[in-house]
Amino acid sequence: MTILKGIRVVEGSAFVAVPLAGMTLAQMGAEVIRFDRIGGGLDANRWPVAPDGRSLFWEGLNKGKKSIAVNLKSEEGRELVTRIVTAPGDDAGLFLTNLRVRGWMDYETLSQERKDLVMVTLTGDRHGRPQVDYTVNPSLGIPHMTGPVDGAPVAHALPAWDIAAGNMVVSALLAAERHRLRTGQGQEVCFSLKDAAAATMGHLGMLAEAATTGESRPRAGNALYGAYGQDFVCADGQRVMVIGLTDRQWKGIVTATGTAEDMAALERETGANLRREGDRWMQRDRITAILTPWFAARPLAEVAQTFDKGGLTWAPFRSLPEALKADPDLGPDNPMFTMQSHPGLPSYPVPGTPMEFSAFDRVPAAPAPVLGEHSEEILAEVAGLDDGEIARLFDKGIVSQARSAHRSAA
Amino acid sequence: MTILKGIRVVEGSAFVAVPLAGMTLAQMGAEVIRFDRIGGGLDANRWPVAPDGRSLFWEGLNKGKKSIAVNLKSEEGRELVTRIVTAPGDDAGLFLTNLRVRGWMDYETLSQERKDLVMVTLTGDRHGRPQVDYTVNPSLGIPHMTGPVDGAPVAHALPAWDIAAGNMVVSALLAAERHRLRTGQGQEVCFSLKDAAAATMGHLGMLAEAATTGESRPRAGNALYGAYGQDFVCADGQRVMVIGLTDRQWKGIVTATGTAEDMAALERETGANLRREGDRWMQRDRITAILTPWFAARPLAEVAQTFDKGGLTWAPFRSLPEALKADPDLGPDNPMFTMQSHPGLPSYPVPGTPMEFSAFDRVPAAPAPVLGEHSEEILAEVAGLDDGEIARLFDKGIVSQARSAHRSAA
Repeated sequence: MTILKGIRVVEGSAFVAVPLAGMTLAQMGAEVIRFDRIGGGLDANRWPVAPDGRSLFWEGLNKGKKSIAVNLKSEEGRELVTRIVTAPGDDAGLFLTNLRVRGWMDYETLSQERKDLVMVTLTGDRHGRPQVDYTVNPSLGIPHMTGPVDGAPVAHALPAWDIAAGNMVVSALLAAERHRLRTGQGQEVCFSLKDAAAATMGHLGMLAEAATTGESRPRAGNALYGAYGQDFVCADGQRVMVIGLTDRQWKGIVTATGTAEDMAALERETGANLRREGDRWMQRDRITAILTPWFAARPLAEVAQTFDKGGLTWAPFRSLPEALKADPDLGPDNPMFTMQSHPGLPSYPVPGTPMEFSAFDRVPAAPAPVLGEHSEEILAEVAGLDDGEIARLFDKGIVSQARSAHRSAA
Repeated sequence: MTILKGIRVVEGSAFVAVPLAGMTLAQMGAEVIRFDRIGGGLDANRWPVAPDGRSLFWEGLNKGKKSIAVNLKSEEGRELVTRIVTAPGDDAGLFLTNLRVRGWMDYETLSQERKDLVMVTLTGDRHGRPQVDYTVNPSLGIPHMTGPVDGAPVAHALPAWDIAAGNMVVSALLAAERHRLRTGQGQEVCFSLKDAAAATMGHLGMLAEAATTGESRPRAGNALYGAYGQDFVCADGQRVMVIGLTDRQWKGIVTATGTAEDMAALERETGANLRREGDRWMQRDRITAILTPWFAARPLAEVAQTFDKGGLTWAPFRSLPEALKADPDLGPDNPMFTMQSHPGLPSYPVPGTPMEFSAFDRVPAAPAPVLGEHSEEILAEVAGLDDGEIARLFDKGIVSQARSAHRSAA
């Protein structure tokens, strides 16, 4: 059993946010049906890819879903998708999309077939224009705050807004489904990636900060903004991040590094009170100068031992391959992961949901389908077609079926 | 009316993720009570701060909540919080926390007072150790993938994992509350910031990529990974990001910039097929060299006009103050925002929820409370205490009340 067992969600999507939402719901136990055009959607070949060209991205974001491939340009294909989206069932009639299709696939049309449909639509911006994480982020100023003190704006490598928006799609669906459970009323929920980003920046105080000061938050390299936190290079060249955000964390750094006298001298000289987080931020370069020799004199292993003993909040900087080798949180020791491999390739950890619901056992991650893997099953069980109709749809090329499963292909 | 009207959530929290979760629920209509220790929690003064020292961070992340300040070191204060968390009500008994308090505030103890309690606990890592966004991120290798091709790892300025985890807390609560609505069964949901990050990186294919290749994804400056997308400097020094992720987007760039012949020559020379996204990625430096003169010859306004006409996916790089001035999506033109100001300071846009639920009207963002602003109301209405008991608790310093509201203070 899983927490959302019994719910059926249909997803028409591509790329990160909505596929992530559907997959999150699938890992919570929902039956999630993703439909794609024949040959695959816009993200069918998205990088990263395995050496044989299979998309590791697609496999990661579609775990545990059912897949049907439909000719969406044909009237019959569109009718089929409509039938699947609006199929009966108390816990069905839930639809997620980031595809902008006016007419047959909009809420007004679909809800004529199922009045209590819940549909969550994610757009690029609030005007419906295309925007992606890579454009939303620079337009809102995060790259201007990121990176070394001097130099050009730095866009980060993580599609952070897509990730946030995908999780918001899950919340939106669950809230709207809750309302439907109580009242019988369906509805559409719309929002945009850009609004999700702009709202979040407002929540973090960034909009108020920029308007109030009239300035961009200064770039500060890897420093923690507004208090103390800094990266240091150890004697063996390893880099660590150490956090002095709270009073307890700050005292821990000073104690562990034996720098109390130097910090007191700095306070006397500058009039700063380093117990205040803002004063630590203002004095961060002086603090870093005091701490640097301590790190430079010790290899990472010694730093680690001292910091763990002192209960500090810290972490090594690692490349992802290094982390996969060194960190037990990224391997079979962590029950969130199951190890999988494709023939001829090294095994890798595949995550289930991070959430542990105490009333349920953890469920291992299910693999992604191959495109069209469940076409026949969905036509029979969800669209309610008989064998003859299904055969006709395959023959006419309205629906296609997976020829082979990737996982057993090589 | 709002979608979650009637739900009551109690929050014991600090910093980003759990406050963001509570605020998200509040903006969806839940009654959210945040309790803090007297004088304020760990994030009471978190930067960014206004010129008078008020935390714009705290105000941003606690909008629309009710606040009670309690002496959590006293037995009586703990009993009060227990009473508030476990107060009766079909749609109450929902508790969010990232404070690690064993004993009186853990699920085992609290659920003795209310058997169907739903409690969501976010920890640093799965072992319960303290970790923050600033440590989780470097330990998982994102800074190694970020920034200019050469140089040290670059941590990004956005607390992206906190944002993701906060939205996951919302999903976890709604899923567990749904289960309780149907079965009457409460439960605890636990997960860690680090697991949320590691799972998401797995979903994006990054763990499979690193394990398969044995290498870190190469740094690529501001290039879009795996296809084509790049920043360019225009004739007037303005920087833009342009996206060639899909086939349509790529053709749009080539057409808009009139570089079809150069791209064809590049294909002939290298054998690449630039219709393939992976080939665009491999040839990105050559493509960028072809496109650079086009941007260098035109000011941003001309680039913008051409790109909008061509339906391209693109955006200018802006600092946040520039964006606030230039972008109507970040001001009163956007119904998500209401403009607010503190006396003597410039006004700024305050976001409500980005989600538009068609069955409800948008609700403007409510301001954050002052610490303790609702202490008396909560003691009376939620804890069910009479006037005499409330007066005694204030007199003894078990509970404190706000002396004045910031918004009207200056």
